[in-house]
Amino acid sequence: MSESVIGVSRPRVDAPDKVTGATHFAADGHVHGLLHARLVLSTEAHALLQRVERDAALAMPGVVAVLTADDLPLASAGSDRTTEPLARTEVVFAGQPVALVVAESEAAAEDAVEAVVVEYEPLPAVVDVEDAMLPGRALARVLEEDAGGGDLESIHAGVDKGQEDGEEEQLSGNVLDTVHRNAGDATALLETSDVVVSGTFRTPWVYQAYIEPQVATAWLEPNETLVVSTSTQGSFVTQRELARAFGLPLERIRVIAEPLGGAFGGKLALMEPLAAGAALALRRPVRVVLTRAEDFQATNPASAQVTHLKIGARKDGTLTAIAARMIVDRGSNAGWGVEGITSLLVAGPYRWEAHEIRGYGVQTNRFTFGAYRGPGAPTAAFALETLMDELAVELELDPLELRLQNAVVEDDVGVSGNPFPRMGAVEVLERIRTHPLWQSRDSLPDNEGVGLAAGYWPGGNEPAAAVCRVNQDGTMTVVTSAVDMSGVNTGFAAIAAETFGLSPDQVRVVAADTATGPYSGASGGSKVTYTVGKAVLKAAEAAREKLLAAASDELEIAPADLEVVDGVVRAVGAPDHSITVAEISGKALRFGGRYEPIEGHGGSAQTRGAPSVAAHLAHARVDRETGEITLLAHVIAQDVGRALNPALVEGQMRGGAAQGIGWALYEELVHDENGQLLTGSFLDYAIPLAERVPDIDTLIVEVPAPDGPFGAKGIGEAPVIAAAPAIANAVAAAVGIRLRELPMTAPRVWATLEESGA
Amino acid sequence: MSESVIGVSRPRVDAPDKVTGATHFAADGHVHGLLHARLVLSTEAHALLQRVERDAALAMPGVVAVLTADDLPLASAGSDRTTEPLARTEVVFAGQPVALVVAESEAAAEDAVEAVVVEYEPLPAVVDVEDAMLPGRALARVLEEDAGGGDLESIHAGVDKGQEDGEEEQLSGNVLDTVHRNAGDATALLETSDVVVSGTFRTPWVYQAYIEPQVATAWLEPNETLVVSTSTQGSFVTQRELARAFGLPLERIRVIAEPLGGAFGGKLALMEPLAAGAALALRRPVRVVLTRAEDFQATNPASAQVTHLKIGARKDGTLTAIAARMIVDRGSNAGWGVEGITSLLVAGPYRWEAHEIRGYGVQTNRFTFGAYRGPGAPTAAFALETLMDELAVELELDPLELRLQNAVVEDDVGVSGNPFPRMGAVEVLERIRTHPLWQSRDSLPDNEGVGLAAGYWPGGNEPAAAVCRVNQDGTMTVVTSAVDMSGVNTGFAAIAAETFGLSPDQVRVVAADTATGPYSGASGGSKVTYTVGKAVLKAAEAAREKLLAAASDELEIAPADLEVVDGVVRAVGAPDHSITVAEISGKALRFGGRYEPIEGHGGSAQTRGAPSVAAHLAHARVDRETGEITLLAHVIAQDVGRALNPALVEGQMRGGAAQGIGWALYEELVHDENGQLLTGSFLDYAIPLAERVPDIDTLIVEVPAPDGPFGAKGIGEAPVIAAAPAIANAVAAAVGIRLRELPMTAPRVWATLEESGA
Repeated sequence: MSESVIGVSRPRVDAPDKVTGATHFAADGHVHGLLHARLVLSTEAHALLQRVERDAALAMPGVVAVLTADDLPLASAGSDRTTEPLARTEVVFAGQPVALVVAESEAAAEDAVEAVVVEYEPLPAVVDVEDAMLPGRALARVLEEDAGGGDLESIHAGVDKGQEDGEEEQLSGNVLDTVHRNAGDATALLETSDVVVSGTFRTPWVYQAYIEPQVATAWLEPNETLVVSTSTQGSFVTQRELARAFGLPLERIRVIAEPLGGAFGGKLALMEPLAAGAALALRRPVRVVLTRAEDFQATNPASAQVTHLKIGARKDGTLTAIAARMIVDRGSNAGWGVEGITSLLVAGPYRWEAHEIRGYGVQTNRFTFGAYRGPGAPTAAFALETLMDELAVELELDPLELRLQNAVVEDDVGVSGNPFPRMGAVEVLERIRTHPLWQSRDSLPDNEGVGLAAGYWPGGNEPAAAVCRVNQDGTMTVVTSAVDMSGVNTGFAAIAAETFGLSPDQVRVVAADTATGPYSGASGGSKVTYTVGKAVLKAAEAAREKLLAAASDELEIAPADLEVVDGVVRAVGAPDHSITVAEISGKALRFGGRYEPIEGHGGSAQTRGAPSVAAHLAHARVDRETGEITLLAHVIAQDVGRALNPALVEGQMRGGAAQGIGWALYEELVHDENGQLLTGSFLDYAIPLAERVPDIDTLIVEVPAPDGPFGAKGIGEAPVIAAAPAIANAVAAAVGIRLRELPMTAPRVWATLEESGA
Repeated sequence: MSESVIGVSRPRVDAPDKVTGATHFAADGHVHGLLHARLVLSTEAHALLQRVERDAALAMPGVVAVLTADDLPLASAGSDRTTEPLARTEVVFAGQPVALVVAESEAAAEDAVEAVVVEYEPLPAVVDVEDAMLPGRALARVLEEDAGGGDLESIHAGVDKGQEDGEEEQLSGNVLDTVHRNAGDATALLETSDVVVSGTFRTPWVYQAYIEPQVATAWLEPNETLVVSTSTQGSFVTQRELARAFGLPLERIRVIAEPLGGAFGGKLALMEPLAAGAALALRRPVRVVLTRAEDFQATNPASAQVTHLKIGARKDGTLTAIAARMIVDRGSNAGWGVEGITSLLVAGPYRWEAHEIRGYGVQTNRFTFGAYRGPGAPTAAFALETLMDELAVELELDPLELRLQNAVVEDDVGVSGNPFPRMGAVEVLERIRTHPLWQSRDSLPDNEGVGLAAGYWPGGNEPAAAVCRVNQDGTMTVVTSAVDMSGVNTGFAAIAAETFGLSPDQVRVVAADTATGPYSGASGGSKVTYTVGKAVLKAAEAAREKLLAAASDELEIAPADLEVVDGVVRAVGAPDHSITVAEISGKALRFGGRYEPIEGHGGSAQTRGAPSVAAHLAHARVDRETGEITLLAHVIAQDVGRALNPALVEGQMRGGAAQGIGWALYEELVHDENGQLLTGSFLDYAIPLAERVPDIDTLIVEVPAPDGPFGAKGIGEAPVIAAAPAIANAVAAAVGIRLRELPMTAPRVWATLEESGA
């Protein structure tokens, strides 16, 4: 047998093209007769649209059209970004697209945007999410329209919303949705717990900060097929959203997902309705590409959140109850919010005897909320893991042992009401326990500390299909419709190679579009390797069956007595009796061939989730003079199920931890009291640059997912979750203060130090 | 149960786009930075290339390059059109591409072609195919190179070449290949037969006369993938030919077969090596599109043929033996010829006690021979069916009864040495027997006659695969890589609809390219419906299994107790217990869905052929003053296995018969004695215009093919075969003369009338 290719580090299959500049991104496509669209963005956070004066713009050279909502052939009156890509009558955030200027050149469109005059009747801007909830408060949207929603809600937050109950809280109309999860009498149990800690935690709006700004191009084929070439995480979901927006049958829409220049949850059906609407209106190809400044204003960052949390324990360290009130600022997203998932994740990977958790999705005049790597998870973990640390202090218990003692194991029932699947909460904590940084945490210089935190992501499920085709030369093509994000195609190649019996170099993974591709959901929710990868495995198995049937005929040996090694089918125990995959495929793929093409189709529909858990250790130093936090070291231990390709797994862990460091220390989208964005560029919005991120120590823990390909699970979201509370706990260990708000900027730390007198 | 969709006439799925001008053909694609290539064609039929003077052309505005063979990155030194797309050192026919002028515009390229001066050292042009065979004769190609061949040989002529024997005939080097088929002592049997008839039959070069001239466009993606968008009958075969031409791995070549504007066998890898070679050399997109005049000169029409045939019978009408010597003019096609198939088909659908058949593939300085609907078949049938008619006269037997008496039935061994599969030779003749035209054949006015002839096409086999995917809205997409020629996609839709349980309107058939598509061979050889259609059927069955599994879970009824009718899954006998396909698909294709995508993959690899046989009746009047033949009526009875869509089947029968009428009466590519083409336009080359083709009466006969989808078989080639001899036999019946050469133009008829004194 050749060595397994599973568990072996290999370069990403997309790397050569990307590093040589050969990757063709969505903005690179040449389309004949292309028009360029630029957005006119609302300057008001909340207003009624009075008039869009377009004559001056239309008179400028090269300008073809200035489109407003009425000019787009929209099918319904929804108020989400799919059904209302341009504001109809009411603008609900500063930066909302109001009009599209379409011109023969990018420059002409840009110039003409300045000439479009929009008259507004200003309305009060709702920006304080807690105030907005109160009965009688001004509404962030005064005109009622259908909420829409479509498919996007479920992709990242497709969990149950808990049970309904009879209690009616008095709330304003800004509260679009409420979630209530409870079991047992949490209030009573907290009252009788030996130790109770509580706090209110605030996290800001955070930008996904993908390298490639959002872009989509749309055109009509002569047969009226709408083709959309776009930077998206999901081709089929985009197809469905466009069908919903324009009332078109699915077969009239073809979506081509081009290679992604980063997305992190933020690229789902924002630009496509604009480009498609303009192309349908003008019957010419139209591209919408955002500048970075526009991308900051007009897209869909992660929502701000306020979490009131209280947890309790007995003296022996047994957790008792958790009570939470979680307020999610959806901005203008009427369709969905993360109150469902954040109210689940706030309980962490721990057992509770009782819980009482409420989540609120509240509209404000900020952005349209969107998904960002682990939506609702970092915010929940920041609150819970900070209080877990405080609980350990109060109980005089080791914070790691406290977590270990309460960590869920398989079949423990979570606050979702469902039992946990197998998940390595215990294993990652045990792995952390032996790490030198943890061992040496009590012997650090002054103002330094080590903090620990853990968090998990439940992982998504979505049926998927894939095809494996052996070419005449014996190489294999794997066809899926999954968008290659975070290296999933590289994993598919390994899965197919291992299953079929080739070397990964002989396997090529290609993405099909919605016209011809097997079904895949959006790349997101940490589900692609788990679900599409499983379909690839089954497709490779099906192809292998055809291969063995043909080889059996050629070699006159029963299929069961054959093995496939590095592209050669040979008799088990008699490797000289062999035939190559290329020979068999050559015999099949020709006129008069006697064997079916060596191709297989596989489908998957897991119903069990495969949650991934990660624990972080942060080593921080705090400058008492300035409040500046310096991260000296960072460790992440993550249960990845099975590391198909450890190099890529470590890449995900590092990238996630780095983004978690961004949450912790740097990132914050700030509006003024009128809802005007103050941090609309990378000059104002800080992300963790390489010099600020220490070398991250990655500890791979493998607790196989029973339904995953070779035990693999989705690993993209888990590593971002608990980085911030680990750093917060390190700060507490270093200087004894507890931060309640992210990011932990120097002024905030300094002010907290001052307040505490620490 | 809803009514079957099989056997029901429906419009072609490609018709709306074609009649509204919405179909995007290969020349319609806009490619950024496209260069336009025009061919410099050899003015000599045979010469050594001395020099290509390009400076004057290169000095002209817009001209980018003048490429000769040495400029193309060819991998080997073959001498077929794939490996030698531009003549290297020797030109072997007038019209052979010698250089490519590449310019920024079509007009600039056209102008510059005139400025390219090619110096030749003329060599003797070999144009008389019988003379060319004789030992010592001048060769049509004096410099030896590898013959090449590749995959193209097998597509239309992939039959055995008979056995080898020890006899060595003295032949010139122009004879590239010989075929010998014999069994029994045909010579002796003919000597002792009661009646023997013989003749020498000549057929000319015939042009495929597709509406859309040949065209291909090629470019390199930034990652060095060579993409070719082309009007071709086969994407995968083109991919392989390009890999062979340029020594590239398959994965670096992506071939997109655009909708065909006609092909009839002629569009296989002629233009692609030119466009691809230029694109590889210049690293810019290049399109080669032929004018009609260039298409006449530089492509690959059907070969001329000389057939010496002798057949015998006993007094009772039993056929005894057949002896044939068949000389196929391959022109410059060193790779393959139709001597293999024509020497098989000359025996017709009849039993022979002995046969002695020789075929010769001979090179001349004419075109490169290519395939044309039923290659080698009309030529063979013209000879055989004329002599069958003469035999009937000699035997004083009814020509239909003579044929019936000797018609093959299943398991009769043919001259291939293999038993015939089930084929409706008897059935089509019996159907003709009752036709009013046949019944009234003896009561016609003077100079009118009715002629009968029959012929069959063995049908091709090639493994194929297909995918059926149910979309979220409950419609189905059928994905194949087959080129939609002659309505095969319409047949696929019916096959998938019937198998799965939808109406054909709910099924869309799409073609994938070589990057992502399931395998298909070229559309040709009357095999696509039979082979790819079978794969579609199996794919639809596989999808249906997934559907029923999900429906069973939803309805809590066993799959065996469910049926699918018009998009609804319902309990057999309790149709109110039902769920729609759209509902199930909607439950599967979403985040958290519990069912695998309703998709299936199917592969086929039939090893039994499914021959189709057709009998023609022609009613002709001959003008004794001018020799002009007027076709008054034409009838075709064809065994089509099962008519999936009778309207399309009749269309194939009519189209084939019309092209057979072209063979009979009009079509002839004529060279002068120096090998210069005299008939290089539609002014000089006559095709049967609508006014010359009578209403053709189509009689569908259904003898199901056991391995075909719903019994269907390939039907494209059979209807062309026996039209010409039916007309020739009608002429004999009308005025008593026997024509030995096609086309039966008025001067030839008049001359024959004069000679015969009839």
